[in-house]
Amino acid sequence: MPDASLIFPAREYRRRIAALQAGMTETGLDALLLTSPADVFYVTGFLTRFWESPARPWFMVIPASGDPVAVIPAIGSDLMSRTWITDIRTWDAPDPVDDGVSLLCETLATLVPETGRIGLPMGLETHLRMPLADFLRVSDQLSPRRFTDATAVVQRVREIKSEAEIDRIRAICAIASDTFDRVAEFARGGVPLERVFRDFQSMLLQTGADWVSYVAGGAGPGGYGDVISPADARPLTSGDILMLDTGAVKDGYFCDFDRNYAIGPAPDAARRAHAALFAATEDALEQLRPGMLARDAHRILTEGLRRRGAQPGGGRLGHGLGLTLTEWPSFTPKDTTELRAGMVLTLEPGAEIAPGRILVHEENIVLRDSGPELLSRRAPATLPELPA
Amino acid sequence: MPDASLIFPAREYRRRIAALQAGMTETGLDALLLTSPADVFYVTGFLTRFWESPARPWFMVIPASGDPVAVIPAIGSDLMSRTWITDIRTWDAPDPVDDGVSLLCETLATLVPETGRIGLPMGLETHLRMPLADFLRVSDQLSPRRFTDATAVVQRVREIKSEAEIDRIRAICAIASDTFDRVAEFARGGVPLERVFRDFQSMLLQTGADWVSYVAGGAGPGGYGDVISPADARPLTSGDILMLDTGAVKDGYFCDFDRNYAIGPAPDAARRAHAALFAATEDALEQLRPGMLARDAHRILTEGLRRRGAQPGGGRLGHGLGLTLTEWPSFTPKDTTELRAGMVLTLEPGAEIAPGRILVHEENIVLRDSGPELLSRRAPATLPELPA
Repeated sequence: MPDASLIFPAREYRRRIAALQAGMTETGLDALLLTSPADVFYVTGFLTRFWESPARPWFMVIPASGDPVAVIPAIGSDLMSRTWITDIRTWDAPDPVDDGVSLLCETLATLVPETGRIGLPMGLETHLRMPLADFLRVSDQLSPRRFTDATAVVQRVREIKSEAEIDRIRAICAIASDTFDRVAEFARGGVPLERVFRDFQSMLLQTGADWVSYVAGGAGPGGYGDVISPADARPLTSGDILMLDTGAVKDGYFCDFDRNYAIGPAPDAARRAHAALFAATEDALEQLRPGMLARDAHRILTEGLRRRGAQPGGGRLGHGLGLTLTEWPSFTPKDTTELRAGMVLTLEPGAEIAPGRILVHEENIVLRDSGPELLSRRAPATLPELPA
Repeated sequence: MPDASLIFPAREYRRRIAALQAGMTETGLDALLLTSPADVFYVTGFLTRFWESPARPWFMVIPASGDPVAVIPAIGSDLMSRTWITDIRTWDAPDPVDDGVSLLCETLATLVPETGRIGLPMGLETHLRMPLADFLRVSDQLSPRRFTDATAVVQRVREIKSEAEIDRIRAICAIASDTFDRVAEFARGGVPLERVFRDFQSMLLQTGADWVSYVAGGAGPGGYGDVISPADARPLTSGDILMLDTGAVKDGYFCDFDRNYAIGPAPDAARRAHAALFAATEDALEQLRPGMLARDAHRILTEGLRRRGAQPGGGRLGHGLGLTLTEWPSFTPKDTTELRAGMVLTLEPGAEIAPGRILVHEENIVLRDSGPELLSRRAPATLPELPA
């Protein structure tokens, strides 16, 4: 990657901070506390796989005006100092007595008046990445300052990707597209699914992914049972439909799409389902526009499937994408998030072929004023076949 | 993997539940609520990379007696039904109005009397993996039932690994050991570090890892600056010390250890530091016993380094290992966790060679009554060299 510790020039992060601060002013927040890997990366460029260790909390404090303050474990000091952040306060973590609580309280107490409000993402699709007991202590020590939900402040900014971000997502989508085009090199009848998963991940890496945070898939006669299972040792068999799905990562940005393959001649039902999924996705690619709501995308996809005689699967039929494998909004009947230009989204219709047998299909797009622009290379219209 | 959705026979999970329930009885808990990937996997065998999506919360409820109840998104129903869990309650997630809150409240209200207490891990090294606002709603709706910290209940059980678990960790350690032995096949002078990281991950997969959740490392003249950065494009150069560290995964269990290599002839200071790290680790391998505290391991390692004229690095010098890349306890001067037979641990001394130049060294062990048994293949006593 061009600059592992920064990813973008400082002006990109300053623009993000300014946008967050505008939202904070609008909602009367005196500071914003961020704790998740994606939120910290978003405002700093601090990129590390070290989040895999649950041992230590990491804090970014965004004041109502001025630059952010990093309150982080000393082990991250070297890497954070290579980002655009200059105010870096560290403690020796993990500390069973005081794991950053005092340092965080001191920092917030200085930046936020006693009557002030501190925003924290605490809504749908967020987690507080620190021990709950420590948060309750922080909340208590900072009283009468109050913590309030800042989910919308963060989401309305993060969901609109800059062209620089779109370029990164396009790059990892291209790497995954190239890999999907070469699946025939390692997947065919007789190869165990777990072997296919290993080779798929290796090829993603060799094609340019920095790491592969997510691989899923399935294989079964005429369709698969679910889309979140790890691979088993069963060899692929003629008549199976194989699906591979990946969230590979480059420069901290994810792709998230899948592809289907028939092992040997494609069974009729699967071929018809694939054609319906392809056509419903075409509908969405033609019709989706800024100003629609997330639930409109769900409607377009389900109607598109029904019109082609397919039975829409349950669950959401697409979602946001970027700094994590999935982001809000969700294409469900209940999600009223407004779709806006600059959103990066997945279109992910699923069809039920028989009870317990499904087929899913996924593309990644950026929504423009004129409609969707594909970031993934479009799946073939006809279900491709691999040698049995 | 032998059985992707189960990993162990049901009796292993029943034993775990019984141990948790004994701890619950001791501390007066009427139920235990688990939300993290590792905790859910621990009691069910439900293994998926789908946790990578932050969109949905997942809940396991352990009653004071009887079998656990899964309260999970419908998308996980198929996979969960292949585990030993039979009481599976699902909702269509993500739901912006009620994302499992009502279903979780109904479940807990039935299992816990109004005066009862619900345990939840909320201490050091834990996170609540659900939106904080939803937790506050659950807490409010279930009142006067109270949530209390159950970190110790979970940790005292999880930290003692069964022989079946130790076998899994030994297996992934062997895969990483085999890979470290072959680093010379892809790392030498002139190769960019990011290329080395890609090939290292590919080889881990090809050697048998299911996936590679963590790779870190560093390379620099005579030592490296930190141990959590992603790779950059700088080619390895004569005089560099290269360190590679991995948390690869098989059947849901992690290894976590590193290896060092000199590019060309090893600089004297680095060779001396490596020898001191090796010797200090030997001290710990000889002296560590059940009944000692976590801070004793820290003392043995720092004294071992000082005795060989090396300057111990800051931070912790080892930690637990198993279902996550790192688990409690931490080998710091402050951690008074008792070391017990059956704990799987890392020994991870670090030495400062010059300001901003460090060398770290890591092994994985299981603590037996007689002392440590190595799970990683012991690092070479002398810093190995790769062609410049």
